[in-house]
Amino acid sequence: MKIDVCYTPELIHQFDVSDKCVVIIDILRATSCMVAGLGSGVKSVTPVATVEECEALGKEGYVMAGERGGEKLPQFQIGNSPFDYMLPELKGKAIAATTTNGTRAIELSKEAPDVIIGAFLNLSATVKYLLTQERDILLFCAGWKGKYNLEDSLFAGAICDGVKKQATFESDAVTSAFYLYESMQTDLHYYISRSNHANRLSKFGIMKDIDYCSKTDEFDIVPRLIDGKLVV
Amino acid sequence: MKIDVCYTPELIHQFDVSDKCVVIIDILRATSCMVAGLGSGVKSVTPVATVEECEALGKEGYVMAGERGGEKLPQFQIGNSPFDYMLPELKGKAIAATTTNGTRAIELSKEAPDVIIGAFLNLSATVKYLLTQERDILLFCAGWKGKYNLEDSLFAGAICDGVKKQATFESDAVTSAFYLYESMQTDLHYYISRSNHANRLSKFGIMKDIDYCSKTDEFDIVPRLIDGKLVV
Repeated sequence: MKIDVCYTPELIHQFDVSDKCVVIIDILRATSCMVAGLGSGVKSVTPVATVEECEALGKEGYVMAGERGGEKLPQFQIGNSPFDYMLPELKGKAIAATTTNGTRAIELSKEAPDVIIGAFLNLSATVKYLLTQERDILLFCAGWKGKYNLEDSLFAGAICDGVKKQATFESDAVTSAFYLYESMQTDLHYYISRSNHANRLSKFGIMKDIDYCSKTDEFDIVPRLIDGKLVV
Repeated sequence: MKIDVCYTPELIHQFDVSDKCVVIIDILRATSCMVAGLGSGVKSVTPVATVEECEALGKEGYVMAGERGGEKLPQFQIGNSPFDYMLPELKGKAIAATTTNGTRAIELSKEAPDVIIGAFLNLSATVKYLLTQERDILLFCAGWKGKYNLEDSLFAGAICDGVKKQATFESDAVTSAFYLYESMQTDLHYYISRSNHANRLSKFGIMKDIDYCSKTDEFDIVPRLIDGKLVV
């Protein structure tokens, strides 16, 4: 089993996803939200790119989730915080979520036979899943507006650490992610809270989201993409 | 003064080089060769993309340097080894060099007001130069066929380490390069010799090139691009 890392959607053309298990990574906050919601009883999360697609699903009864520029849209029921996704009244509900970076990564993985969702919140469950399946693995960092970001790369390194005895590191990108994690793992929260994206988010007063997204193993689930929906 | 890192030529569109000092980095082996040659008395190195361009300059009296697939071209005087570039008979000569990754990075930096060449071989000289000039800095890793590579990123981290008191880290890419270097600096040669590109090169029996390119501060010079030629 081989493992590789794609640091941003702008490099995905360098990888062949058609036979891979792809792990989508968008720690702040899309994949953390998905894990938190699906781990708390949400029935499904359908990622969509635009507000309009989200509103169309809203008319079919979906709970609409999303933000633009860091703030919840007024016509939507919830924003893009893991705490929103864990609200008790969402148990059993289907969510339609607009995200930018996360949805782009999912869209670019559509040729892959298996697409799963990874976050620190389900780190051990993700590692366990990857070790029981047999495909080569691509860790796909959603990045931020196409740029490299720290928290996604750090999570990729955490996965590499978890699978290192069974998986062959396929590229220097894997080696770097692994060593980045090795050097930062003793205080993930410190490094994540100092990342560029955390700095952007902190302007909106959502440090508690960043704190929560840095926690490991809150949920023992692995969301998978089935017919355009993320489900457990 | 701000500093940023571009990990591969395929991400250079995310950066504005028009007001930057750009450091071209292609440790194995283009920028190491350029530093070794210019530090040993070569008059200039003109980077060109194709064998044909190199041959055209050869007719004008340039020493032709280059390889394809890891082997010296038969019609060329020297290959792509730093030891070739340091031959005593090349003192005072102008070299025309075909490289792939390195030349691409230089070509993509042509809007920049200042383009310099960095390698471990001139690490301290490069840091010293960067601290005396006033432009924001972009560390431009040539990578390998557009992909992220370890040795270029590691050198970027070494520069970040050297300028960290005076320069502001502009992005997560800088932070990661810095921590990568912090975790590997005690044995640069070990990590570089295990990189993907070193593995590819080792098939051609040129471990001594890799050993040499991992040495620091052999030369106290900084090559700069002036009218398409690299000179000291």
